[in-house]
Amino acid sequence: MTPLDQVNLSELPSKNTRLEQTRLLLQEALTSFEPGRVALSFSGAEDVVLIDLVQALGLKVDVFSLDTGRLHEETYQFIDTVREHYRQPIEMLYPDPAGVQTLVKEKGLFSFYRDGHGECCGVRKVAPLRSKLAKLDAWITGQRQDQSITRGNIPLREEDTNFAGSSAERQPSALIKFNPLSEWTSADIWNYIREHEVPYNALHDQGFVSIGCQPCTRSVGPFEHERAGRWWWEEATKKECGLHSQNIINVVQA
Amino acid sequence: MTPLDQVNLSELPSKNTRLEQTRLLLQEALTSFEPGRVALSFSGAEDVVLIDLVQALGLKVDVFSLDTGRLHEETYQFIDTVREHYRQPIEMLYPDPAGVQTLVKEKGLFSFYRDGHGECCGVRKVAPLRSKLAKLDAWITGQRQDQSITRGNIPLREEDTNFAGSSAERQPSALIKFNPLSEWTSADIWNYIREHEVPYNALHDQGFVSIGCQPCTRSVGPFEHERAGRWWWEEATKKECGLHSQNIINVVQA
Amino acid sequence: MTPLDQVNLSELPSKNTRLEQTRLLLQEALTSFEPGRVALSFSGAEDVVLIDLVQALGLKVDVFSLDTGRLHEETYQFIDTVREHYRQPIEMLYPDPAGVQTLVKEKGLFSFYRDGHGECCGVRKVAPLRSKLAKLDAWITGQRQDQSITRGNIPLREEDTNFAGSSAERQPSALIKFNPLSEWTSADIWNYIREHEVPYNALHDQGFVSIGCQPCTRSVGPFEHERAGRWWWEEATKKECGLHSQNIINVVQA
Amino acid sequence: MTPLDQVNLSELPSKNTRLEQTRLLLQEALTSFEPGRVALSFSGAEDVVLIDLVQALGLKVDVFSLDTGRLHEETYQFIDTVREHYRQPIEMLYPDPAGVQTLVKEKGLFSFYRDGHGECCGVRKVAPLRSKLAKLDAWITGQRQDQSITRGNIPLREEDTNFAGSSAERQPSALIKFNPLSEWTSADIWNYIREHEVPYNALHDQGFVSIGCQPCTRSVGPFEHERAGRWWWEEATKKECGLHSQNIINVVQA
Repeated sequence: MTPLDQVNLSELPSKNTRLEQTRLLLQEALTSFEPGRVALSFSGAEDVVLIDLVQALGLKVDVFSLDTGRLHEETYQFIDTVREHYRQPIEMLYPDPAGVQTLVKEKGLFSFYRDGHGECCGVRKVAPLRSKLAKLDAWITGQRQDQSITRGNIPLREEDTNFAGSSAERQPSALIKFNPLSEWTSADIWNYIREHEVPYNALHDQGFVSIGCQPCTRSVGPFEHERAGRWWWEEATKKECGLHSQNIINVVQA
Repeated sequence: MTPLDQVNLSELPSKNTRLEQTRLLLQEALTSFEPGRVALSFSGAEDVVLIDLVQALGLKVDVFSLDTGRLHEETYQFIDTVREHYRQPIEMLYPDPAGVQTLVKEKGLFSFYRDGHGECCGVRKVAPLRSKLAKLDAWITGQRQDQSITRGNIPLREEDTNFAGSSAERQPSALIKFNPLSEWTSADIWNYIREHEVPYNALHDQGFVSIGCQPCTRSVGPFEHERAGRWWWEEATKKECGLHSQNIINVVQA
Repeated sequence: MTPLDQVNLSELPSKNTRLEQTRLLLQEALTSFEPGRVALSFSGAEDVVLIDLVQALGLKVDVFSLDTGRLHEETYQFIDTVREHYRQPIEMLYPDPAGVQTLVKEKGLFSFYRDGHGECCGVRKVAPLRSKLAKLDAWITGQRQDQSITRGNIPLREEDTNFAGSSAERQPSALIKFNPLSEWTSADIWNYIREHEVPYNALHDQGFVSIGCQPCTRSVGPFEHERAGRWWWEEATKKECGLHSQNIINVVQA
Repeated sequence: MTPLDQVNLSELPSKNTRLEQTRLLLQEALTSFEPGRVALSFSGAEDVVLIDLVQALGLKVDVFSLDTGRLHEETYQFIDTVREHYRQPIEMLYPDPAGVQTLVKEKGLFSFYRDGHGECCGVRKVAPLRSKLAKLDAWITGQRQDQSITRGNIPLREEDTNFAGSSAERQPSALIKFNPLSEWTSADIWNYIREHEVPYNALHDQGFVSIGCQPCTRSVGPFEHERAGRWWWEEATKKECGLHSQNIINVVQA
């Protein structure tokens, strides 16, 4: 029921150990690659915690974010606030106009409610991400194990086999995916945000927990799981947008 | 930080034991007094759980609610939904017009932000409750130990010394206050609500947890304590409206 | 369609003449009666224009307002803003608790949607007004001829036969009703408000024009008549709350 | 003050004459050009009136709309409703990702509040429109003379000198711009919408009149001019987004 049920807390390292682990991993991620070959994918509360930790370490990080063209106005304000608060450039990635145009021409602007979110996410999120990752050797995400049943096995560091094949220049070397908050719980994240006065999306104070695109996100009630607010008309096992579809394979195989 | 931190869960009886305990206590409360001498005070999610449990036991209960004249429209809709869903009469109690008129004439409609909520709650909530309790030998509330630091010691059954003195007819026998959900956690309540499809206030899906009057309630963010949404401009130790002011004395003395 | 269609503008005196007429009528109303025997009934935008005009004349006026217990939060804020902006005491009138309690016990909190608004307005608005008017020789309202089809014949000054009979002390002398804005159009009111920076209800910037109780008021679209936002489930000829039911008789007789 | 003040109504042809004129102009526009060389630019209430009139004439029209990526969710729903209600394909035009990316990288997501709306409109609206118009010989708009001071002289049919030069294939023949509703008032539009049950943007029932991008649009109060809700931090003479910048030149020269 609560996020805390999703992970076996007794098996997790202590809070301080996890924080130190995250710092070390960020340091490794940001110093092991050529300049411009590693970047942080930014969208939610977790990612600002990562930016805050990076700046506290005296390091710099390239940050990009996927603007699907259907985000909440509060999300645009949030992105701009982070940009100004940390003086952190954020590269916005946009979908290919032709791809969106074709989808919308055939199916209208709300096809995801009928056909599932895969096609729309494919055009508006996955394709722009794939193009970006093709120019990287590693990326950093804010995924956590307790976010959903599809994320229960997320390691701190993994090979991204999903997006690796997309880069001609990188082969055969692997695309590395860092998940420095993998073992943080939702409560850890919010403790950090409040203690360090980290900016967060105003929607979080209106019952929103996990926040994606406007038509595919809703607020949740007390003790509802955060992913209940995403693609609520679909099955829990399908609730990844393709950015982390490797997780779905893991669930199916397990 | 989380409500779960407020109580030592390992000291609580198991969930099923607590449910059984609640049922037994409701049965006792509803069968030990003369007809019309015990009633349930209704306002929030917990109280509908109690109504649901009472009806499942095949019992009847008198229910009253305090209409301060400043509730959210969603709360009025919620009260009416409960009334219809359970075919449960709900007696609405109104403040004395002269009392409200005098307060408002002197201080305007928002004096609580300057002077604290005590005076306004006194006129709009405590006085009507006191009149009602003067006609009762016992009342039933939905208070829980993990709701706030002022409620950590709430017993299942107690003598209400705060309101007892108000009834000429009752003396010297005591006013009994039943808190059948005292040992339930917030998660217990919401599990019950979702499993039994119990109606709840629509504000709960917009980030509201504990809900009082409109100007004195706000939504809370993830992992904020539920009482952070009530009288947020005041100290945590003062956050009772006078209905349960006995709790405050307990905190101060402890 | 537009409010302008409701009255024959060519028959109205010029704007400046009407303003002067309003000033003279206010002066007459406020100087012709014993102290405390005339008062202004305050609820909407028009009434603040009257308060503004009274203060500009260097006069004083007793103001009262009907708090039904079901107003919008924005309306409570508006009343308090007027109170502070003009340092104008506003006496809030409350319904008799027993009356509301009986209505709600029998029919719930939303009976007006089924049974029409008459019964609820009767308890929450008309009865408190009747008690108040029984202590007055005259009252001042912000009614305008172009507000609705029931108000097309509103005179500047009339005998209030509807509420006159209610006062033992006044008989046989009449209760006078002043409508100093009778010949102002809606556009006149809003021109005045903007030119003189008169405070107004924040709901007016969200599509609300005529504003009553929360459950019985809604916003209107472009070029919808303002009264379309009041008791929208009822016929246009019944859209008076009893305060001005004399108007209904006029319509029916005409 | 009201839109009606903006045009001299006595100089306008009668309502029926104007409707007939609009029908004739639509017929001319849709039958005088090669297939695919004329299209209707769709965004607001006026444009659905045009679609409704076209279908009533038994004609077909190509329709396109500019999706800036910053529209209200209600606008996306409105576009989809029109698409389904009239079985009318609507081609969505998207800005060049590189253009938006550069603007946002340098200035963030809200630069228009500081620097004026011209740059952002240039990238998100004008450039995609220019590309589209380069493939057309004529376009149809819903502009009206009473919409703003910059639109007081809009003719029914004009040469679009602003966008004409953009097409290699068209030169030297002109780009024709049809404004079939040029002489309709705002009241005419809303009368038509209500009589013919034409779908409209849900924001119109929340105080919004003229609707553009979310961050650059706000609701207006009673009797505020509709353009007061657009780019409200700028001067009235600059309130065109570049789609109809020819109008600005007219104002400056006049």
